[in-house]
Amino acid sequence: MSIQTPNWVKNAVFYEIFPDRFAKAKPPKNASQNFQQVEFEPWHDPPTIQGYKGGNLWGVMEKLDYLQDLGITALYFTPIFQSACNHRYHTHDYYRVDPILGGNEALQELLKQAHQRNMKVVLDGVFNHASRGFFYFNDILENGPYSPWVNWFHIQDWPVSAYNGDLPANYAGWVGNRALPEFNHENPDVREYIMQVGEYWIKQGIDGWRLDVPYQIEIPGFWEEFRERVKKINSEAYIVGEVWSDARYWLDGNQFDGVMNYVFTGPTIAFTAGDRVDRALVEQPDYTPYPAQNASEYAQHIETLLGMYDWEIQLTQLNLLASHDTARLFSIAQGDRASVKLATMLLLTFPGAPCIYYGDEVGLPGALDPDSRRCFPSEEAWDQDLLQWHKTLIQLRHRYPALRTGEYKILYAKNLVYVFARSLAASELIIGINAATEATEVQVSTDQLHSQPQNKLCGEGNWRWEKDTLVLSLPPRQGCLIG
Amino acid sequence: MSIQTPNWVKNAVFYEIFPDRFAKAKPPKNASQNFQQVEFEPWHDPPTIQGYKGGNLWGVMEKLDYLQDLGITALYFTPIFQSACNHRYHTHDYYRVDPILGGNEALQELLKQAHQRNMKVVLDGVFNHASRGFFYFNDILENGPYSPWVNWFHIQDWPVSAYNGDLPANYAGWVGNRALPEFNHENPDVREYIMQVGEYWIKQGIDGWRLDVPYQIEIPGFWEEFRERVKKINSEAYIVGEVWSDARYWLDGNQFDGVMNYVFTGPTIAFTAGDRVDRALVEQPDYTPYPAQNASEYAQHIETLLGMYDWEIQLTQLNLLASHDTARLFSIAQGDRASVKLATMLLLTFPGAPCIYYGDEVGLPGALDPDSRRCFPSEEAWDQDLLQWHKTLIQLRHRYPALRTGEYKILYAKNLVYVFARSLAASELIIGINAATEATEVQVSTDQLHSQPQNKLCGEGNWRWEKDTLVLSLPPRQGCLIG
Repeated sequence: MSIQTPNWVKNAVFYEIFPDRFAKAKPPKNASQNFQQVEFEPWHDPPTIQGYKGGNLWGVMEKLDYLQDLGITALYFTPIFQSACNHRYHTHDYYRVDPILGGNEALQELLKQAHQRNMKVVLDGVFNHASRGFFYFNDILENGPYSPWVNWFHIQDWPVSAYNGDLPANYAGWVGNRALPEFNHENPDVREYIMQVGEYWIKQGIDGWRLDVPYQIEIPGFWEEFRERVKKINSEAYIVGEVWSDARYWLDGNQFDGVMNYVFTGPTIAFTAGDRVDRALVEQPDYTPYPAQNASEYAQHIETLLGMYDWEIQLTQLNLLASHDTARLFSIAQGDRASVKLATMLLLTFPGAPCIYYGDEVGLPGALDPDSRRCFPSEEAWDQDLLQWHKTLIQLRHRYPALRTGEYKILYAKNLVYVFARSLAASELIIGINAATEATEVQVSTDQLHSQPQNKLCGEGNWRWEKDTLVLSLPPRQGCLIG
Repeated sequence: MSIQTPNWVKNAVFYEIFPDRFAKAKPPKNASQNFQQVEFEPWHDPPTIQGYKGGNLWGVMEKLDYLQDLGITALYFTPIFQSACNHRYHTHDYYRVDPILGGNEALQELLKQAHQRNMKVVLDGVFNHASRGFFYFNDILENGPYSPWVNWFHIQDWPVSAYNGDLPANYAGWVGNRALPEFNHENPDVREYIMQVGEYWIKQGIDGWRLDVPYQIEIPGFWEEFRERVKKINSEAYIVGEVWSDARYWLDGNQFDGVMNYVFTGPTIAFTAGDRVDRALVEQPDYTPYPAQNASEYAQHIETLLGMYDWEIQLTQLNLLASHDTARLFSIAQGDRASVKLATMLLLTFPGAPCIYYGDEVGLPGALDPDSRRCFPSEEAWDQDLLQWHKTLIQLRHRYPALRTGEYKILYAKNLVYVFARSLAASELIIGINAATEATEVQVSTDQLHSQPQNKLCGEGNWRWEKDTLVLSLPPRQGCLIG
């Protein structure tokens, strides 16, 4: 059977929200969870590792106009379930939205409001591990070997020591972190528990799951079953895995619809930002935005990437320049706006769903965690030029189906100039990127095209057609979209 | 305004269920929580402090026929919310029924089935303290002073040490127990949180709250507000507090409808079991079933008790001979069945709702915790004589309104013979108890009565009327109910 992925994703522009930091609003007066006395860190102070800023889903709802105006059609939230941690990857309760965020009722209202705007909502599912406070693990802390839930985790010895680092933890934790006890996925009850969580929120109306470190659940058939059960409830649900590298194993059509496409991210930064990349900010996550790449190396990477997966999968990849797990490109490129703009142009003209990390569109800086998770700035601090760049490119993506689902054809890749086309039936668009600091004129052979686009849709550049050749002049560090 | 208490309670016979130990059944096939691999301790092995037997609400439903046949009209459950402890006083989640018990769906089904039988359901609310795994406290464990929930508890210093007893806990726990962090009830958010829990389950259909250690919440107006909000949803909801001694402060009509009436329990045991009481089993809980009392001392206690509260309150007290917090009378009396039968007769003929501690009706023994929480025995092990005694007395209580709401008149109290009447309009019943080991004949003046009951309804004894005097012969260690 041929691979099937959700159509809406192919046409979506995602926005990744880190809920503690994006927006904060007072709950409506009739909200049942309406805490008055809770104190949070000041919104615009630098974030700390453990502090909460108090962002919530009520705040997100107030921002829906802004997001819609930006052109966003889908929201991907980092975890929102009850968690004793500001990033909420330490799940305390898989069935409850965190009270700080507004609880389950705020999610229901958000789903309603988002869906009214034809905006989708994808949640982050952390199913490899739970937290020390998660009920089934907490019972082991309280009752030791008497706990009926001992087989839900990988207990190695007694006593387990969850909070005292002087003693061996005696259980498996994610990357050895005792705060994050790993599930025993071989236990059919655990497996069923996770499957039911997956089903539950789809039934509640979410449009898909982003799966945290899914490659660490190495149980045959696990993700196949997850897909089957989720899709049975909503055949258009999106399942996107956090896989940083070659994801062919998971993208065979039976598991995920796409992955967090860091295989796109790394080379795109290495090409557009080049030597401007601050290595200290990129050595940790495994996505190699360095060393600097020239256009030909970049083209090779892109060709390899496009050859990796079925086209149906390519169209539902989640493409990104940054996430909560990386520094922001603006900081990686040491404040070089051109790097951000060129990379953003490549992102928004690539097959697969582009995903903007909240704040990137207004030039929010951010080094490594926790700095990469600053609060969304107030309007005075927005980089309006960058914001306009994002809006324009997103609008163009929405206007031209070729930018979403058209064939990707590399036309030219030499030195620091990279030119490619997206074509869908009669519609053809050409994107030229000059990553060099000098102006350049290149002769692009366009045998692969059957038209000669004439209109500058975005960016800077001049061109003329000489028979089948596009003679393209690009100013230094500029890109141009011709359609 | 005059005191108002729920009418149904005045006519109810309660049964206290310790859910881990009463009954276990397989969940229905369509239940969403259906764990297959969880192992529990063998049902009939002696209970351990930390082990689970795996009783559940599905099992309770299977026992409803039995309970109805016994004459029970109301169930009082010790805590059923998610808790990492077999007695579930360590609440982990106030909004979720424990998964072992069948989760929220099992409670919903139980409520449906119980209400179809006109049986009420009262839950145990533990609002003085939570548990170490409770979300808001767990956040403090994870984030220390960065937690937004610091003011939800009484944190005294950092770091808090919840699991390592070698360090000071640095927070207030119930009777110094670090497993049970005490709420800061002065925080309006905490107060509101508890009020909403109280409201939520009433809205879900429960018929009342038994409140754990409510006297430890010493916030003016707290229980008044709780009553007001609960009664606003269901004016017939029952609110019964765990108060072991003089409860006038809480029984002023603005707080509770009744208390766990241990002020009745102690003297009743001291009179009926006398020197048979095993002091080792009763020294701990504060309800003085020793030293032995004679009939006159017992009468004094009862008169004092009946003088303590408004009659409307008396009728909705929760009267009991044992609970999960005490040893069972059968063991306290060192296996003396007569003590149990006499005390049971006094219980079931007293104003206020009698409450049978599960298993007491079939002679289940039980020393102190955990022995007092044995699993309900299989039928071969039932004391059928005791069971029949309970059934008969409960039936009589249902048949004769005077036993429920009639005036209580002490007629005779000398040596070890105690005689009293319950009278309601034309209906009068006389109860005679001979706690002595010798047969006795007593002359009971009945000026207070306006009739001369002639029928033996239950028990052993002979009598004749000599004008206004009842000449009553009672065999050793027997009681007689005349109506």
